[in-house]
Amino acid sequence: MSVNSGRHCLSKIFQPVTIVSKTANLGRQDVTSKSQRLMLELGIIQQAVPGCFHFLPLGMKSLEKLIRIVDSEMLKIEGQKVMFPGLIDSKLWKTSGRLEDSSELFQLKDRHNHDYLLSPTHEEVASELISRLGHISYKHYPLRLYQITVKYRDELKPRFGLMRGREFLMKDMYSFDTDVHSARKTYEEVCQCYDSIFKKIGVGFLKVLGTSGTMGGNLSHEYHYLAHVGEDRILLCQNCNYLANVQLSGSCKCPKCGEQTKLDIKNSIEVGHTFFLGVKYSKSLKAHFLSKNAKPEVLQMGSYGMGLSRLIAASVEVLSTEQEMRWPDSLAPYNIVILPPKAGSKEEAKTKNIAEKLYVALEGQIEGLKDNVLLDDRLSLTLGRRFLDAKRVGYRYIVVINKRAADVVPLFEFNDIKTNTRLYLSENELLTYIKDNTVF
Amino acid sequence: MSVNSGRHCLSKIFQPVTIVSKTANLGRQDVTSKSQRLMLELGIIQQAVPGCFHFLPLGMKSLEKLIRIVDSEMLKIEGQKVMFPGLIDSKLWKTSGRLEDSSELFQLKDRHNHDYLLSPTHEEVASELISRLGHISYKHYPLRLYQITVKYRDELKPRFGLMRGREFLMKDMYSFDTDVHSARKTYEEVCQCYDSIFKKIGVGFLKVLGTSGTMGGNLSHEYHYLAHVGEDRILLCQNCNYLANVQLSGSCKCPKCGEQTKLDIKNSIEVGHTFFLGVKYSKSLKAHFLSKNAKPEVLQMGSYGMGLSRLIAASVEVLSTEQEMRWPDSLAPYNIVILPPKAGSKEEAKTKNIAEKLYVALEGQIEGLKDNVLLDDRLSLTLGRRFLDAKRVGYRYIVVINKRAADVVPLFEFNDIKTNTRLYLSENELLTYIKDNTVF
Ligand SMILES: [Zn+2]
Ligand SMILES: [Zn+2]
Repeated sequence: MSVNSGRHCLSKIFQPVTIVSKTANLGRQDVTSKSQRLMLELGIIQQAVPGCFHFLPLGMKSLEKLIRIVDSEMLKIEGQKVMFPGLIDSKLWKTSGRLEDSSELFQLKDRHNHDYLLSPTHEEVASELISRLGHISYKHYPLRLYQITVKYRDELKPRFGLMRGREFLMKDMYSFDTDVHSARKTYEEVCQCYDSIFKKIGVGFLKVLGTSGTMGGNLSHEYHYLAHVGEDRILLCQNCNYLANVQLSGSCKCPKCGEQTKLDIKNSIEVGHTFFLGVKYSKSLKAHFLSKNAKPEVLQMGSYGMGLSRLIAASVEVLSTEQEMRWPDSLAPYNIVILPPKAGSKEEAKTKNIAEKLYVALEGQIEGLKDNVLLDDRLSLTLGRRFLDAKRVGYRYIVVINKRAADVVPLFEFNDIKTNTRLYLSENELLTYIKDNTVF
Repeated sequence: MSVNSGRHCLSKIFQPVTIVSKTANLGRQDVTSKSQRLMLELGIIQQAVPGCFHFLPLGMKSLEKLIRIVDSEMLKIEGQKVMFPGLIDSKLWKTSGRLEDSSELFQLKDRHNHDYLLSPTHEEVASELISRLGHISYKHYPLRLYQITVKYRDELKPRFGLMRGREFLMKDMYSFDTDVHSARKTYEEVCQCYDSIFKKIGVGFLKVLGTSGTMGGNLSHEYHYLAHVGEDRILLCQNCNYLANVQLSGSCKCPKCGEQTKLDIKNSIEVGHTFFLGVKYSKSLKAHFLSKNAKPEVLQMGSYGMGLSRLIAASVEVLSTEQEMRWPDSLAPYNIVILPPKAGSKEEAKTKNIAEKLYVALEGQIEGLKDNVLLDDRLSLTLGRRFLDAKRVGYRYIVVINKRAADVVPLFEFNDIKTNTRLYLSENELLTYIKDNTVF
C-alpha cells in the first residue's frame, strides 16, 4: 500500500473512483450482483475478461488480510503451507475418472502435444505427490498440506463478479490419515478450524450438511452466507434445527424429524466446503503408507476448500446497502479514515498537524490499526464530499477534523458508520472507543 | 509451518528426506543442476510435471521470506500491490504484436472458443487496465503497480529445476509516467529498489546493461548471479569495469574502451530485469492520461521483473557445495537448529528441558529468530546423524546439546557452518554471537 513519509494517503492509492472524473466504465461488463457493482464502481476490482478480475490495491489489501487470518488458523492445526503447480497433467484426472465430465475444465496442450488442465482443485495432484515419494511410515501421519493459489473453472456463464468467476483464489487443504478413525478426527479438527476462521471474519455464517457433488466421498459440510443473490439454497427446519443444503433433502420435508410445514428455505452463497473423501482419490492414485506390519496401505483423505476471493465479495454482498459498501472489520482495506479540513479554510489554519498527530497516535497505540489508518489528503475537496466518499467505500470509522479540533482540548467529530453514531471525542476517548468496539 | 505447543519441530515438517527411508525418487526427473538435485533430494521441492514444481513446506517458507523482503522494499517506493488474472485475452497480444512469436506461449480456448494465453508477463494487461479506466489526469501519475503471481512459459526444454521452469513465481511491476523525464526518474528509483532487495538477500550480484530482447524499449538492466550452470554470459572489462550481457556487445571487444584482451566472460543466472519501455505497449494499447491542456497523451512505461522461485534456486546454486545446501541467512527456511540428546542417553537425563529453554530464549530475545528456530526432535537418531542432516540442509547455526550442557553453567556446542566454527558457548554468549553475525 502506498505511503507518504510512513503514512497511508488516499491521493497515493490507485483507486479509480477517486481519480477518474466520470463513473467507472462498466459498459463492457455484465453486472449481476450488488457487491460486483459496488466493487467495480468503487475501484476495488476491475474486470479483465469475463469471470477474471484484477484485484486493485484496496481489494488486494483486503485479500491479504484474509490470507493472514487463514494462515494463522491453519498453523494452529499443524497445516503446512505448500504450493502446487497450476498446470495439471490430464492423466491424473483420467486416472481418477474426473476427466469424463470436463465441460468446466480449461484444457490445453504444450508444444510437445501433451495434455494439461488448469487446476480447478488438487485432490489428484496431492495424492500423486504422496504416491511418488514412496512409502512413508504410518508414524509420519496425519499430514495436512494446504495452499493458497489461483484456481480455474470454465463457467458457462461467469456471474456475480468474484462470486462465480472463471479464475479465483482458493485456500485448499488436503489431509492424509492412516485409518478412518484418525481421518474423522482430522476432519473434525479442520471443521473446527473453519469455524474459527469464519468467526474471525465476523460475517454471520451457517454450517450445514453438504452435498459431495462431483467430489465423491462420504461426508461433507458447507459454510454459507445468507444472501438473496446466492445460488445455493439452505433448508432450515424450525422444529428440530436441522440445517442442510436443499439438494440433500429435496425441499418439502425435513429428513431428520419429518416436519413439512415449519421449513425455511433461504438463498445462500457457499464460501467453504469440507469433504471427508475416504480412499476415493488415494486408491486410484496410489497414495499409500507403510503400516505397522510394513505393508503398503491406502491413505484416508480429506479435502477442504475455501474460496478467498469469493469470500471477500460475499462479505461485501451480505453487509452492503445498494449504494454503500460495508466490510467486516477483519477484512476492511482500512478501518479508519481521517479527514483534515479543506485547503484554505479557517479550520485548516487552526488545526495544523492535528490530523497527523492523531494518525500517529492511532497507529502507535492500537495494534490492529498498524497500516490500517487512511488519511484523505485530497484537501481541494470539501469535508462533506470526502465524508460521503469514505462512507460509500465503507470505512467504519470516519474522523472529521473541524473547528472543534481547535478547542483547547481538541475534539474530533467521530463517526461509527456501523452503529450510525456521531460523537465529539477527545483523542483518548476516541482511542478507547475503537479499542472497545473493534475486533480486528 | 508446523508447530508443537508453539515450537517448530522437525518431526512435524513434511520434508520427504527425513521420512522416506530410501533416497527421494528422482527417477522420472531430469536433474541438470546442483541446486535442483539438492532441493529435490532434501525435500524442498518436488517435480510435478517437467518444468512445474511443488513447493514443499521448507521451500514455501523460504519463498514467503523472499516475498516479505520484496513487499517491504516495494512499499518504500510507493509500489502498490495488485493481482492480475493469469488468463490473458489473446487479442491484447495481437494488438501489441507479441502473438507473432508464440512458440513459448501456452495457449488455450474457453468453451465459447475464445482465445486466451497463460500470462508469461503483463505489459499488455497493465496497459489495457489503464486504458479502460478512461483518461486519468496527469496529477495522479506516476503510478507503480506490482504483483507476485504465477507465470507460464512453454519452454522447449525446461531445465535446472526452478531456474528454467514452465511455471514460476514472478514479481512484476509496471510503472506509468506522463513524460520521459519522469519515467527515467521512476526507472532509476526502481533500479535502486532492486539494488536494495538484492543486497537484503545477501547473495553477491552483478548489475549489468541488459538486452531488451523481445520486450522492446530503450534501456534495460539485468541482475545476475555468477554460476557455472548459468545460461547467460556476462562481459567484464578489467580495463574500464564495463559490465554487460555478452549479447549486447559481441564477445571480443569492450564497447566502452575498446579493450580486447583484458576481458572476462562469466556464466551467470539472470534473476532480475528492468526495462524502460517508453510507449511500446502504452501506444498500441491506448494507455493515455489527460495532460495539463486536457488532451489525451500516451503514457511512458517501465516494466520490472524478478523471478522469485528462480531466485531461491539461484541462491542455493551459488552458495551450495555438491553435497550440501547453503542458503543466504535472509532466505533460509530456518536459521538455527537445536539438537537435543538421543532418547535414553545419559545426556538426555542430565539436560532435561535445556533445549526447550534455549529455544524460548532464542525466539524471544532475537527478533529475526521468531519462527526461525527448529528443534530436531527425532530423538531416536544419534546426535551425529542429526548433525549431518542439519548441515546437509544448510541450517547455518547448529546447536548440539551434549554433556557440557549439564555443567553448572550450561555450555552449548555451537556450530556456525558458514564460517566453519565450533565453539562452546553459554546461552548469553550464543545469543550475542548470533546477534553480531546475522543479517536476517
Ligand atoms: Zn426437522
Ligand atoms: Zn572496457
